[in-house]
Amino acid sequence: MRAVVIHAPKDLRIEDFPDPAPGAGEVRVGIEAGGICGSDLHYYHHGGFGTVRIQQPMALGHEIAGVVAAVGEGVRHLSPGMRVAVNPSQPCGVCVHCREGMRNQCLDMRFMGSAMRNPHVQGGFRKHVTVAAAQAVPIADRLSLAEAAMAEPLAVCLHAANQAGQLMGKRVLVTGCGPIGALMVLVARYAGAAEIVVTDVADAPLAVARSLGASQVFNVAARPAAIDPWRAGKGVFDVLFEASGNQAALRLAFDLVRPGAVIVQLGLGGEMTLPVNSIVTKELKLRGTFRFDGEFELALRLMGEGRLDVKPLITASLPFERAVEAFELASDRSKSMKVQLTF
Amino acid sequence: MRAVVIHAPKDLRIEDFPDPAPGAGEVRVGIEAGGICGSDLHYYHHGGFGTVRIQQPMALGHEIAGVVAAVGEGVRHLSPGMRVAVNPSQPCGVCVHCREGMRNQCLDMRFMGSAMRNPHVQGGFRKHVTVAAAQAVPIADRLSLAEAAMAEPLAVCLHAANQAGQLMGKRVLVTGCGPIGALMVLVARYAGAAEIVVTDVADAPLAVARSLGASQVFNVAARPAAIDPWRAGKGVFDVLFEASGNQAALRLAFDLVRPGAVIVQLGLGGEMTLPVNSIVTKELKLRGTFRFDGEFELALRLMGEGRLDVKPLITASLPFERAVEAFELASDRSKSMKVQLTF
Amino acid sequence: MRAVVIHAPKDLRIEDFPDPAPGAGEVRVGIEAGGICGSDLHYYHHGGFGTVRIQQPMALGHEIAGVVAAVGEGVRHLSPGMRVAVNPSQPCGVCVHCREGMRNQCLDMRFMGSAMRNPHVQGGFRKHVTVAAAQAVPIADRLSLAEAAMAEPLAVCLHAANQAGQLMGKRVLVTGCGPIGALMVLVARYAGAAEIVVTDVADAPLAVARSLGASQVFNVAARPAAIDPWRAGKGVFDVLFEASGNQAALRLAFDLVRPGAVIVQLGLGGEMTLPVNSIVTKELKLRGTFRFDGEFELALRLMGEGRLDVKPLITASLPFERAVEAFELASDRSKSMKVQLTF
Amino acid sequence: MRAVVIHAPKDLRIEDFPDPAPGAGEVRVGIEAGGICGSDLHYYHHGGFGTVRIQQPMALGHEIAGVVAAVGEGVRHLSPGMRVAVNPSQPCGVCVHCREGMRNQCLDMRFMGSAMRNPHVQGGFRKHVTVAAAQAVPIADRLSLAEAAMAEPLAVCLHAANQAGQLMGKRVLVTGCGPIGALMVLVARYAGAAEIVVTDVADAPLAVARSLGASQVFNVAARPAAIDPWRAGKGVFDVLFEASGNQAALRLAFDLVRPGAVIVQLGLGGEMTLPVNSIVTKELKLRGTFRFDGEFELALRLMGEGRLDVKPLITASLPFERAVEAFELASDRSKSMKVQLTF
Repeated sequence: MRAVVIHAPKDLRIEDFPDPAPGAGEVRVGIEAGGICGSDLHYYHHGGFGTVRIQQPMALGHEIAGVVAAVGEGVRHLSPGMRVAVNPSQPCGVCVHCREGMRNQCLDMRFMGSAMRNPHVQGGFRKHVTVAAAQAVPIADRLSLAEAAMAEPLAVCLHAANQAGQLMGKRVLVTGCGPIGALMVLVARYAGAAEIVVTDVADAPLAVARSLGASQVFNVAARPAAIDPWRAGKGVFDVLFEASGNQAALRLAFDLVRPGAVIVQLGLGGEMTLPVNSIVTKELKLRGTFRFDGEFELALRLMGEGRLDVKPLITASLPFERAVEAFELASDRSKSMKVQLTF
Repeated sequence: MRAVVIHAPKDLRIEDFPDPAPGAGEVRVGIEAGGICGSDLHYYHHGGFGTVRIQQPMALGHEIAGVVAAVGEGVRHLSPGMRVAVNPSQPCGVCVHCREGMRNQCLDMRFMGSAMRNPHVQGGFRKHVTVAAAQAVPIADRLSLAEAAMAEPLAVCLHAANQAGQLMGKRVLVTGCGPIGALMVLVARYAGAAEIVVTDVADAPLAVARSLGASQVFNVAARPAAIDPWRAGKGVFDVLFEASGNQAALRLAFDLVRPGAVIVQLGLGGEMTLPVNSIVTKELKLRGTFRFDGEFELALRLMGEGRLDVKPLITASLPFERAVEAFELASDRSKSMKVQLTF
Repeated sequence: MRAVVIHAPKDLRIEDFPDPAPGAGEVRVGIEAGGICGSDLHYYHHGGFGTVRIQQPMALGHEIAGVVAAVGEGVRHLSPGMRVAVNPSQPCGVCVHCREGMRNQCLDMRFMGSAMRNPHVQGGFRKHVTVAAAQAVPIADRLSLAEAAMAEPLAVCLHAANQAGQLMGKRVLVTGCGPIGALMVLVARYAGAAEIVVTDVADAPLAVARSLGASQVFNVAARPAAIDPWRAGKGVFDVLFEASGNQAALRLAFDLVRPGAVIVQLGLGGEMTLPVNSIVTKELKLRGTFRFDGEFELALRLMGEGRLDVKPLITASLPFERAVEAFELASDRSKSMKVQLTF
Repeated sequence: MRAVVIHAPKDLRIEDFPDPAPGAGEVRVGIEAGGICGSDLHYYHHGGFGTVRIQQPMALGHEIAGVVAAVGEGVRHLSPGMRVAVNPSQPCGVCVHCREGMRNQCLDMRFMGSAMRNPHVQGGFRKHVTVAAAQAVPIADRLSLAEAAMAEPLAVCLHAANQAGQLMGKRVLVTGCGPIGALMVLVARYAGAAEIVVTDVADAPLAVARSLGASQVFNVAARPAAIDPWRAGKGVFDVLFEASGNQAALRLAFDLVRPGAVIVQLGLGGEMTLPVNSIVTKELKLRGTFRFDGEFELALRLMGEGRLDVKPLITASLPFERAVEAFELASDRSKSMKVQLTF
């Protein structure tokens, strides 16, 4: 079986990969669509991020969907031919965080295509993956497998929204409009935000944001002063979703949000120098959000019922044999939002 | 009337001050005790903090208590001779934040002895102050005026505790053990924390923390490795009260708190460079806390009923004429916790 | 000036009423539309509800909108000819509940057309009302005055939704589909509920619920067993909005909601006999919701931006001189959802 | 082995019982102390409560502690001779509620000495019990086994307190002062309640409440008017713990709690007729609380560190052979708070 494997920065290869038969409780899925995520791009360009570095060759990919090829013993709810999205997250279920319902913080997490654990958990950019049956979630007829492969990033954003409390009627700012920022617009609109303002430093993604329901968009590089009306009083936004991982974006936002505002940080930004006095005197609530749990099934349900339409985000789709070309394309924000591989 | 007035950094004078009779709805209070706060020290040493700078001579002081000297027309609940603590906070009551119950975030706040507003609101280190009657809160017989003057910093800590959610049974870390950190120990113990660990870089305040109920104390300058057991798993503390305003303290704490922990930032620390990825991946909740509202009355009630004893924090008391000496003493953490002036 | 005044049960008269010029800070509004609320019907049929009884003749009506006729001294944001919705709620702003941000619980509330206070606060079914300027809220051009008069019941439902916490992705049950239940469907759909099931004992309102976005509707009188699939496990709904005030509806719902579910009680139902053991063992969260505060402005904003469309609820509109006929029509659930008067 | 087994109402027998050796992952505990709970009394007097009825003979008891007698294969953290409290709760760990962190709502719960499941899970009033190793929690040296047997009801009350939100500085009412009400006093005091008022219809338990830290106690049967000062305004208590399961107590409390108050219902009271309009208009928050989860370990930790002293509640201790006498004694509230059996 062929897979898309990272060996070192810029060394991404299409190569053979083991293809085990499903054991008891497992399922073998023939992958058909796989989205390239920002973390895949970090492995490709830099070999990792922060302290997380590739130590061995690792198949990339954790936004995947396909068709059940075979089921192992004892698997009841799946059968060959069923269309499924694959949940890349496999918490242990017994550690202290799992027991408390924070399974995304599992002390023994297995997450596909991540180098956090050593040896790494291999990713899903392959012709077939064999996973625990619970990880394969059947999808609605109306959904394409390309859409189903968006369940993972959409789940990330649903989880982020759940960190923000009630969004209905709120003024929301989204800083950074890559695929995650764009999905946050979709989610905030769905959750009843009264107003959604989006900032970025490029025009192309802002145009997508507008098509997804943003009330207003600003290119803060081109027109920094355009945001000034939002500084009124002590600032006006109730909620910020920071999806850029950029220090300048977060610093700016501190002046635009109202006292007591919730700031949900999605972007992995490494070291940032921040005016902590603003957090103190305005009593801001800065919360990190990381991956998801039950939101994966929810993402599939909401897409499956037609309540959330992620299709406008999928800007290109290439055969996996052209993975290097696809990764380069996904790195060009003027041309791409979400790029997917086909298998 | 004499007052303690700051003119410029290190230029603190005892000088004459106007002493108006109380108008309708006002009360004139003869001040007897006044505590020196960290912000008073900032004005004294640096002329302010961040963008807040003294623009005119300003009487310092906002931790004050005394005896009612005269009441203006229409004041019912006060009469001469009554012992009161003076609430230095006077929100407008009608702005958007007041209407929503966040009166400490008032857009038109008058806070005694603060240069945030211009002209500044004069402080309470004077023989007499004339304030709105609602600012003078009668105290219990068992309370000394020195204790009553602790209501303000205690209210700050009660408000901080209210930002943390339930403390009962929680593991709590307090970083920085000045008067605010020490009061946080008292409050966390009162609120039922299961375990309270305190860090500082000086031994004297840590000894006070222990006497106030801390489970363990660590001098992180002298013995940085002593804290290592708390790094177990992804970290063990449920709640952090950061009272040092020191970047190193907050960075260290990120490794010691568990996923989903609440970090309440009390210390005004200016610019801090922080590992934002820790906030994201551990889903930390960093919340600022600023001043107080109804907690002022609560502080007096809890002290008045003997539930909280702040006396161990008051380490010195000097006549206000020796204010410069008192401010220098308050600046020496090896000798002082809370220093008060008498009038 | 003519007004619609209740004297006793079934004794509703069109009669003369004082029409004072606006004083300082006041505004005189020419009313054009006024919706008949369930509480108006209670006064009409029964002279009140619970311990609240009419003691003097009282003009009814608190869902009103019109055009500014004159403004008193010092009123800046309004001028004659402006179209406004009138907020019937006037909290005191200084009592303990107002200070804590629960202004709808004001100890000295003045609420138009309510007999809770004695002498009663006169209602708004009149040619003109004179109110505090803050009560008159300008509306968007796109809104009709009939829609603007829906701001009050819509605000009630937005407030109810705020009691329920996050609705996005939740399974929601609405019991009782009068105007309030129907608006709850609209609001829950707007706030991103994944599924909205509505029950009633009449078919006509259920048809309206479906047109407003309900996923499924059930006539529990005609087909009680239809609801059985929702009993799966310990029950499946995350949130219940109980808008019938009917004991049978609430009892039934206890079996349909999942452990830890939030039950928001909107319906005034008097005495109900409830299986408290279900609340205990399933750890249900039953919360009352009463009127609104800032949600009045929010209701106008969301309607004004086209996000919520209340027009399908307005089933009839009659001149106020035919008030008795209108009240009888509004009492017939097979024919009417919301009936409005015109002036 | 001998056990205390209920066959029918008033038919409680001391009889032989199987005593299996511990399998892999299990532990055999020699029971030394067992507290009689209100639910044990319900089985004894009435054969159950609500729809829960004994279908087969069942050993009673779920408040138990003892000494490890033998450990099965693979058990690491326990060895013979260790003193342990036995957690009677064994959730499945994999159902939807377990996965969401609400393990006390497990769909497949095994709870010792409960007839909810059929066949019943046998209780712990026996010379030996064999349980999963995770159910046996080692206790501190300072704790007696009698105190350790109080971990279960204490955990119930810690869980109830966690439903109430922050208790620090709050005014708390406890209605009903059996063992659960009395433990709520202890917990509320520990969690920093500013004021704790307790009501009951008997004097003896109220005296215990006072010794545990209640601010004031009232016999509402003897002096119903004594509670009237708490009706001030719309009522004054922030939090109610309803531990009587008595309709009159809950109805009375509705008038004594302030708007927005949290009412935590612990008492299983069956059908109650309640003034739902009070819940609506005062926006009360009535929440059920059921059993516990991680609070079991917390109870042992807080007792083990000397922070909570439950000894004043243990009013009698009898050999298990005299179980009938002990059950009768436990049913007499004028003589008993908590009655324990020894083995």
